[in-house]
Amino acid sequence: MRIAVLGSGAWGTTVASLVSECHDVVLWARDPATAAEINSEHRNSARLPDFAVPETLTATADLASAVTGAEVVIVGVPSSGFRAVLTDAAAYVGPGVPLVSLAKGLEAGTRLRMSEVITAVLPGHPAGALSGPNLANEIMSGNAAASVIAMTDEDIAAELQVVLRHGLFRVYRNHDVIGCELGGAFKNVVAIAVGMAQGLSVGNNTTGAVITRGLAEITRIGTAMGAEAATFSGLAGMGDLIATAMSPHSRNRYVGEQLGLGRTIDEVLADMSAVAEGVSTAGVLMEIADELGVDAPVCRSVHRVVSGKGDAHDAYRGLERMPGHERDPG
Amino acid sequence: MRIAVLGSGAWGTTVASLVSECHDVVLWARDPATAAEINSEHRNSARLPDFAVPETLTATADLASAVTGAEVVIVGVPSSGFRAVLTDAAAYVGPGVPLVSLAKGLEAGTRLRMSEVITAVLPGHPAGALSGPNLANEIMSGNAAASVIAMTDEDIAAELQVVLRHGLFRVYRNHDVIGCELGGAFKNVVAIAVGMAQGLSVGNNTTGAVITRGLAEITRIGTAMGAEAATFSGLAGMGDLIATAMSPHSRNRYVGEQLGLGRTIDEVLADMSAVAEGVSTAGVLMEIADELGVDAPVCRSVHRVVSGKGDAHDAYRGLERMPGHERDPG
Repeated sequence: MRIAVLGSGAWGTTVASLVSECHDVVLWARDPATAAEINSEHRNSARLPDFAVPETLTATADLASAVTGAEVVIVGVPSSGFRAVLTDAAAYVGPGVPLVSLAKGLEAGTRLRMSEVITAVLPGHPAGALSGPNLANEIMSGNAAASVIAMTDEDIAAELQVVLRHGLFRVYRNHDVIGCELGGAFKNVVAIAVGMAQGLSVGNNTTGAVITRGLAEITRIGTAMGAEAATFSGLAGMGDLIATAMSPHSRNRYVGEQLGLGRTIDEVLADMSAVAEGVSTAGVLMEIADELGVDAPVCRSVHRVVSGKGDAHDAYRGLERMPGHERDPG
Repeated sequence: MRIAVLGSGAWGTTVASLVSECHDVVLWARDPATAAEINSEHRNSARLPDFAVPETLTATADLASAVTGAEVVIVGVPSSGFRAVLTDAAAYVGPGVPLVSLAKGLEAGTRLRMSEVITAVLPGHPAGALSGPNLANEIMSGNAAASVIAMTDEDIAAELQVVLRHGLFRVYRNHDVIGCELGGAFKNVVAIAVGMAQGLSVGNNTTGAVITRGLAEITRIGTAMGAEAATFSGLAGMGDLIATAMSPHSRNRYVGEQLGLGRTIDEVLADMSAVAEGVSTAGVLMEIADELGVDAPVCRSVHRVVSGKGDAHDAYRGLERMPGHERDPG
């Protein structure tokens, strides 16, 4: 099959590399130098400095030539640039071609999930998402990993499952697109909370509790938005959150860790070249939680710290209050 | 209040230390030398070598004097010795005194949960469990942690919540005693699987996936036994599993890690002084799963390895098979 992958970040390049072992893949890179490096040196030194990409993978900085003729389009652009790239690509996407998002965020302003942005730009095309505990560098190392292809149409999901799986990269199906996309986006906020705990050196008990209570919060918010709770307990929710929380390569965890060490959000972000989606998602998440009337103390603490209204130590004040039943927030 | 804690392992000693700050606590130690050391030197050097215990905590090797007059009895003996200690103590337990288990295993042979063993030995007494992500050494260090008191009677749960909480040790309530006890016991089997993954150096994606798929397995088995799924997504299930998986101090994770490094189960257990409950729980868990007809491939792999019928590498064979819908096992 002929497949286009848009975006040459670490994850886009990794998915393109996996799929290129069995399919004809063209990776679109915004920067012509990145495309040239992939084609001539089989490397993406800016995003995956430690790995070679397959020689079968070709890249281009020309969106039209990447997308034209593609039977599947995979979009690995961060949420902030997702609609713009898709709009530029739209005229070249063939009729009925399915599109799969790799991004884990909501669109600023509209709060749309990425598959909703796909539908807004390309109505009538099957739209879904690939999400799970998928640290790019580990997959490039050849380690086993599991992911979820989320599509409402189970037949198209089953076809894409075959396309996307490769070797030890296992791809499950899930019909709950809302849950997979919200799980992938919201878990970044909890990952910042976990990072803060780690920066403050408060230990693994607290990490376990923050993940558990934080995941319960985003599950309550997600189900109020139409997701299924089981999806948040699955690979695109809990699985992704755990891998993120354990990995020194996670950008969202890194942001939290630096905040926990006492740096300000401006200082932390100034040093980063790649996007930590959880920083902007925290604000959107709290707007939604407040509108729905769902209490979310862990996510609210993250939002306070990343918006500069408190420091990471504040998040641990108030823990001496008496908690209630485990099913309740707080 | 006058409170007895039975068992001077790391966790029993830690709970006794926490509670002794506000209550009159007597810790029963099987070994008179341990009791003497706690009373004279305020240390338990065998189990918590890095910490002092409060001077307010007294210990005894005389079960009768520990239990007589106690208004709450907390039992921190491993599942293998739980019934025998409780039977010896029974004559001294006052009428209506609630008993709380700290053990995270099922009784060999009968497969009873520890609160069921309490009810078998002391019928009519309120029986419950304390469970959660509670690595003893971190709590002794004064770090924040959260736990769950599980009792069917919400009023007694609320009273015990007040007794057990202390400072940054937060205690939630949960009416689902079955779920909290099964979560605490079964999670040790998944913790061995996580340890095996870590010993094999297969990375955080796999750790995230093993925790997610393993927790889904024990949730399916637990709900078939009468537990509520939400409890497995809570502190006594997921929270405890994450803390265990992340901590170098977890005995169950340690067993798995050593197996992943290629040692045999006999070699690993020969070196350990404390009990890793997950080794025996794995066999009971698979008996139950088979009787219920619930598929549990992660737990089955652990059982094969800890019973000497396979090695840790085997557990990663078969990952190239195509998975199905995320809600299904496999």
